[in-house]
Amino acid sequence: MTEIVKIKEQIKKSDKITIVSHCHPDGDALGSQIALALGLEQLGMEVTMINKDPVPQTYRFLKNWELIKPHDENTGPSALMIFLDCATLDRVGYPVENIVGSNSVVINIDHHISNTNFGHLNWVEPSAAATAELIYDLLGLLHVKIDKDIATALYTGISTDTGSFLYENTTATTHLVVSDLINRGADVGLVRLNYYENINISKINLLKYILNNLKFCSDNKICWAAIKQYDFASSGATDQDTEGLINYLKNISGVEVAIIFREMAPEQVKVSFRSKKWADVNLVAEKFGGGGHPRASGCTVNEDLDKAISSVLRVVMESVT
Amino acid sequence: MTEIVKIKEQIKKSDKITIVSHCHPDGDALGSQIALALGLEQLGMEVTMINKDPVPQTYRFLKNWELIKPHDENTGPSALMIFLDCATLDRVGYPVENIVGSNSVVINIDHHISNTNFGHLNWVEPSAAATAELIYDLLGLLHVKIDKDIATALYTGISTDTGSFLYENTTATTHLVVSDLINRGADVGLVRLNYYENINISKINLLKYILNNLKFCSDNKICWAAIKQYDFASSGATDQDTEGLINYLKNISGVEVAIIFREMAPEQVKVSFRSKKWADVNLVAEKFGGGGHPRASGCTVNEDLDKAISSVLRVVMESVT
Repeated sequence: MTEIVKIKEQIKKSDKITIVSHCHPDGDALGSQIALALGLEQLGMEVTMINKDPVPQTYRFLKNWELIKPHDENTGPSALMIFLDCATLDRVGYPVENIVGSNSVVINIDHHISNTNFGHLNWVEPSAAATAELIYDLLGLLHVKIDKDIATALYTGISTDTGSFLYENTTATTHLVVSDLINRGADVGLVRLNYYENINISKINLLKYILNNLKFCSDNKICWAAIKQYDFASSGATDQDTEGLINYLKNISGVEVAIIFREMAPEQVKVSFRSKKWADVNLVAEKFGGGGHPRASGCTVNEDLDKAISSVLRVVMESVT
Repeated sequence: MTEIVKIKEQIKKSDKITIVSHCHPDGDALGSQIALALGLEQLGMEVTMINKDPVPQTYRFLKNWELIKPHDENTGPSALMIFLDCATLDRVGYPVENIVGSNSVVINIDHHISNTNFGHLNWVEPSAAATAELIYDLLGLLHVKIDKDIATALYTGISTDTGSFLYENTTATTHLVVSDLINRGADVGLVRLNYYENINISKINLLKYILNNLKFCSDNKICWAAIKQYDFASSGATDQDTEGLINYLKNISGVEVAIIFREMAPEQVKVSFRSKKWADVNLVAEKFGGGGHPRASGCTVNEDLDKAISSVLRVVMESVT
């Protein structure tokens, strides 16, 4: 029996199920969680959704988002716990023993290549663009009718996790699934209005700040910017507002490596790296105790901002020559 | 016989065919043109591609882009002339009598609702996301094998004309076609690297200028920016670099109408409008002799920049109250 069929059988034997996704949930975490919950409820099951962090404003168009609660003493562990989009159990952000009972069966459904197979049943598919792509398959196997709300939730997961079908993870299957979701009523306009066309002015201010402070080196192959604590405060931006801004640097003609330095505290600098074609920024991040992938990585440097910048740039400049 | 079948029959009777797309060609014009040319060559036909304006640098990854030439005295009119992605014959940018012979059969394939049906055979499908979607169907009907180069060209047309599957024109069919194109070898990475991740620094400078000069009114429902002739010159940007920048304004939370004023010459101001949900910017543009759609329109105001701004804002402010 394949893992997905075992998961289906396990679900069919259960009547109370808890679905958990990761802390600071994104569109794929929430879309997958809500779609699966709606599907299992259709089959008459009692579903609880728990997440450590609240649903960001931008996703509050998803059906039943308000039913996602943080764990508390009254949330007893279910016999069946399904973890979505979590590469490790830690990603939920809770001490695991608080939410998983000693007799709970743990199902782990994810698309991250770094997944540690922490569940009793593990369905990890790194070729999937999003966990939502896997939930689409699972719901099909469970004979759930994919209605408008489920389709919109799954579309949200896939669209946001692929940068609107632009990232390398997008496949022919991704588009095939999305075609079906649109046929089943996925409200693409709702996602566009609430996610893509709903950018906080604080994020715009941060983008403005970054563009005003772009630096180039190594024949313009490296483009970088640094955000001081003061700049966060004065733009009204939060660390979450930095999400995606590094792409503006990477997307400039001729740039191979993009770097954003964020001063989180004195002597604590978070560094994000992206590369376009060939530079291995995973190797760079590893030299500073971080990691990731050849095209996207990060690390934290415990030095003051100027020192961190010069230490990191020295290594990156070597990597692009 | 449906129009597409008539077009197929007409093509099959021809051995010399000229394919034309519009001036200032974009991804859909070029992708459709190149895909159709490659397909017809596969069937043994002799194909000429003519366009008034050169292929922009960003599209010079498309197979055979260098075979697209401007019309000259040696380019005799073909018996069969196929116009792609042109709402009107004028869109080619040439005096039509120079390129169409008196005995030429004119085929018009397009997805613009405003198409004037100027051809002897007209296949106009406003529900298609891109002309490339129609060329995909036509090549299927002609039993052309969609190889890697054709698939990449068609993908380019569809991806760029839908803003990477984000605009309202994107349908279930769009994703279905794209899924097939990827299966047939469409090089999505090539399009990403050459188009989406290849932004001129002059465009970044213009974006920076615009973000530094954003203005809001009507309770932040209107967001606007003006680019003076001097600003174009100092950022090194051309008018083409403004393409898409208005979306940054529209995508800000709470903004309903976005406006960009471009001073093209003294007393000549081009105005672009976008709206998010409900404001009819077509009506606004019409008051100044322009037009478009309820969500996207434009006009030219022959006043000095400050006067143009105040005339236009007065009308827009009325439209959002």
